Amino acid sequence: MAAIATLGSHCALQVLKGARDEGLRSVLVCERARESLYRRFAFIDEIIPVESFSEILADGAAAAALESSGAVLVPHGTLVAQMSKADVESIRAPVFGNRHILEWESDRAMKERLMREAGLPTPPAVAGPAEISGMTIAKRHGAAGGKGYFVSSSPAEYEKKRARLVADGVIGEGEELYLQEYIPGVLAYLQYFYSPLSGTLEFFGVDSRHESDIDGLARIPADAQVSSSLTPSFTVIANSAMVLRESLLPRVYEMGESFVEASARLVRPGMNGPFCIEGVYDDEARFTAFEFSARIVAGTNIYMGGSPYTALVYDEPMSMGRRIAREVRLAESSSRLDDVTT
Amino acid sequence: MAAIATLGSHCALQVLKGARDEGLRSVLVCERARESLYRRFAFIDEIIPVESFSEILADGAAAAALESSGAVLVPHGTLVAQMSKADVESIRAPVFGNRHILEWESDRAMKERLMREAGLPTPPAVAGPAEISGMTIAKRHGAAGGKGYFVSSSPAEYEKKRARLVADGVIGEGEELYLQEYIPGVLAYLQYFYSPLSGTLEFFGVDSRHESDIDGLARIPADAQVSSSLTPSFTVIANSAMVLRESLLPRVYEMGESFVEASARLVRPGMNGPFCIEGVYDDEARFTAFEFSARIVAGTNIYMGGSPYTALVYDEPMSMGRRIAREVRLAESSSRLDDVTT
Amino acid sequence: MAAIATLGSHCALQVLKGARDEGLRSVLVCERARESLYRRFAFIDEIIPVESFSEILADGAAAAALESSGAVLVPHGTLVAQMSKADVESIRAPVFGNRHILEWESDRAMKERLMREAGLPTPPAVAGPAEISGMTIAKRHGAAGGKGYFVSSSPAEYEKKRARLVADGVIGEGEELYLQEYIPGVLAYLQYFYSPLSGTLEFFGVDSRHESDIDGLARIPADAQVSSSLTPSFTVIANSAMVLRESLLPRVYEMGESFVEASARLVRPGMNGPFCIEGVYDDEARFTAFEFSARIVAGTNIYMGGSPYTALVYDEPMSMGRRIAREVRLAESSSRLDDVTT
Repeated sequence: MAAIATLGSHCALQVLKGARDEGLRSVLVCERARESLYRRFAFIDEIIPVESFSEILADGAAAAALESSGAVLVPHGTLVAQMSKADVESIRAPVFGNRHILEWESDRAMKERLMREAGLPTPPAVAGPAEISGMTIAKRHGAAGGKGYFVSSSPAEYEKKRARLVADGVIGEGEELYLQEYIPGVLAYLQYFYSPLSGTLEFFGVDSRHESDIDGLARIPADAQVSSSLTPSFTVIANSAMVLRESLLPRVYEMGESFVEASARLVRPGMNGPFCIEGVYDDEARFTAFEFSARIVAGTNIYMGGSPYTALVYDEPMSMGRRIAREVRLAESSSRLDDVTT
Repeated sequence: MAAIATLGSHCALQVLKGARDEGLRSVLVCERARESLYRRFAFIDEIIPVESFSEILADGAAAAALESSGAVLVPHGTLVAQMSKADVESIRAPVFGNRHILEWESDRAMKERLMREAGLPTPPAVAGPAEISGMTIAKRHGAAGGKGYFVSSSPAEYEKKRARLVADGVIGEGEELYLQEYIPGVLAYLQYFYSPLSGTLEFFGVDSRHESDIDGLARIPADAQVSSSLTPSFTVIANSAMVLRESLLPRVYEMGESFVEASARLVRPGMNGPFCIEGVYDDEARFTAFEFSARIVAGTNIYMGGSPYTALVYDEPMSMGRRIAREVRLAESSSRLDDVTT
Repeated sequence: MAAIATLGSHCALQVLKGARDEGLRSVLVCERARESLYRRFAFIDEIIPVESFSEILADGAAAAALESSGAVLVPHGTLVAQMSKADVESIRAPVFGNRHILEWESDRAMKERLMREAGLPTPPAVAGPAEISGMTIAKRHGAAGGKGYFVSSSPAEYEKKRARLVADGVIGEGEELYLQEYIPGVLAYLQYFYSPLSGTLEFFGVDSRHESDIDGLARIPADAQVSSSLTPSFTVIANSAMVLRESLLPRVYEMGESFVEASARLVRPGMNGPFCIEGVYDDEARFTAFEFSARIVAGTNIYMGGSPYTALVYDEPMSMGRRIAREVRLAESSSRLDDVTT
């Protein structure tokens, strides 16, 4: 019997419940501080306790346990945030999807190259603070969860807000930020699954994010905003569900397939498994992508019982976690595990 | 075996999946540019390819194919947006619900007459730009999807914003706009199904809309809004789910039944099948209706696996699309297809 | 066969559908004005019609009918809002959970004491209008549904807004308001169920609220807000679904368990059954609690077909209403009804 392992955070519950639903064994690499959370869930078959997730790396104390569990490791945002390219490459257990593509998500230049290769329209970059003329968002590198992002409309406003965040210890003194034109509209996180077994792309759904304290801005009257000195931040707290206008779906699939194809050209064996294209729909209903995630995103947690889109395809509740487990199960039963892991 | 047909857009996936779930054949009238989208879904039994949806009209190239498919055509927003009254009347296939009522949705004066007849409170109309004194929304006629709608608070602001949208090519030079007082509050799209077979009204759920770029406004600090020159638009991008306070439900059913009764008086055979009353709850929890849709709305797509309200009534996932298919199936098995179509 | 009764409002549909799903009899205490709503639902086995809910109290006209129905009464927000401590204590039917704790929800001082005992961080209280220096929310006592709440940033602004609401008849002339620092961020209503039978705490989900007309503020451009004289209110209209970042869950369970333990110390037999901790996540993802509800909340209505979190634990649709019915069923079958009622 195949097994699925993941790190105890982000979407571990969904991933391991999915394993159970597909009849696979579920293995959790779990920091001791979080054991009490995960012990609540009976669908977790095995816990590998660690002090830090780095113990699963090459010579780490938990590497052998993970390997001998026989599990396929499902990477997610926590792994991307905490591990370097070398770290990820050193993991001896098979990794679901393409472990080599995770680096392309973390490195801003590589990320942009892959998005360009896929033909995804992206917001124009702003060369530096001095060039800020319209609304501009400043982002930190890596998967920092939105903490410390901010919007400004002039060099002076940028410096003022940045200085406040540095003073508050949110941004490092010399930390380089990445500037993009800010495009207002409806934010959308497009969730996909590409199966190398069937050669097809599935659209799993779309979510929106709730971020703090930018979300709170909507409930503060304009006069109170102006008289206070808020610098809203973008710390991700929660996700909620949406469906798109059906007329947007052709482009949604097109973008997903372009991304799969571009990945196949740039990062063998390509974009296998779950991924997400993140962007905004403007008032012409045109999509501009500002990020991608080359692995399962936490927004899929809203669909632990399936999404409106999976209800079209599956006559049972199909979460992304369960879809991953199914792919592993199908791969194993046809001796193609190598096709779905790296 | 009865069949369900619809145009390839808006809520076609939901409608045809519903047909499949009820054991009916599913037929899609599909523009060639969108075939690749719909070919992904195995529940679509037959595709009638067209260059334009007008080919299903009286003498159109696809009219015979549609007719010989034996399908009941389910109208939705795309049909309403693209076809005139004469077009709709010319369709030879049976149309689910009441095809004659669709005109009442498209024509502003007829729409108001039906809403008045149903006793629905509506926002006071503003006679013309010169009369603008409080917050006023300007809307375009027809089911334009919200593109080009805007809010202003004075004649000068109206003219300035209108001029900008005309210059941008969003609004035609001499295009007449419709002005209503703007009522702030919680927007709600109330989804109903009236069954002439059982004589009962079912409340299917409520959704909220995500519109661009007005939705983005909430994340732009007030000072940045004031210093920029945004004229937010209301292009519908997505929908999400809500439930209402239970104490609001008596009035929800009351409004739905009044609407059904008013329709029976004004537009034989009345409001059969799905419809939607769209409005806003103010700070007294009073509902003011600003629109209705006399057919299935795209907001039902969020409930492809059923809604909180259908979970009360059906012990299986019941989408609006499936409910339509069930009505057709029940009508056919009791030889009452004429009662549910026109 | 055990039975479940509740008052016809708030979440009665969910509670009684849950009873039916668990094979229990369902009994509704229903004001005549709302009978037509509830008669629509076939899962309601018995209706006890009343002119006013007070008829179920000790000597009330409906007390005997309720008692002889043999039902366990499930209290909800309507009961809390309309009945005093003495009223609640006088009910002769068994009450699900702990009827004595309901008072702690209604009385501001007791509420604060219980939250302190549970170690929940709360927003600093502001002693009086004269002390207002930053953004401050003014709340009315009791479960008023948010009507008349308002935010101000200075004593002058407070008095101006209060005067407007008094003039509008929303707030009573001499009505005392409760002032707290206003913390911007992502609002979250954490739904729990504590089972005294199994001794475990279950996290059922989280919802967000839609309030009028404060929600409408997000769609009014800042310049229009400033030039108008809106005093947004917080009338609850609707709820929608969210999931939290998984890394927030350990703290979510911790807070729930602290609350259960604190309740056991202060209000025997403790916090049995459903409850809710309501608060806000700030930009550090820290939770500050501003309220609790010591009974089922209306936000659970969004999960009538189960939540993303119940999908992890139950392989069938599990609403909070159904969970309550299951607890009653299990208690009855093990002769422990006294452990789950008061």
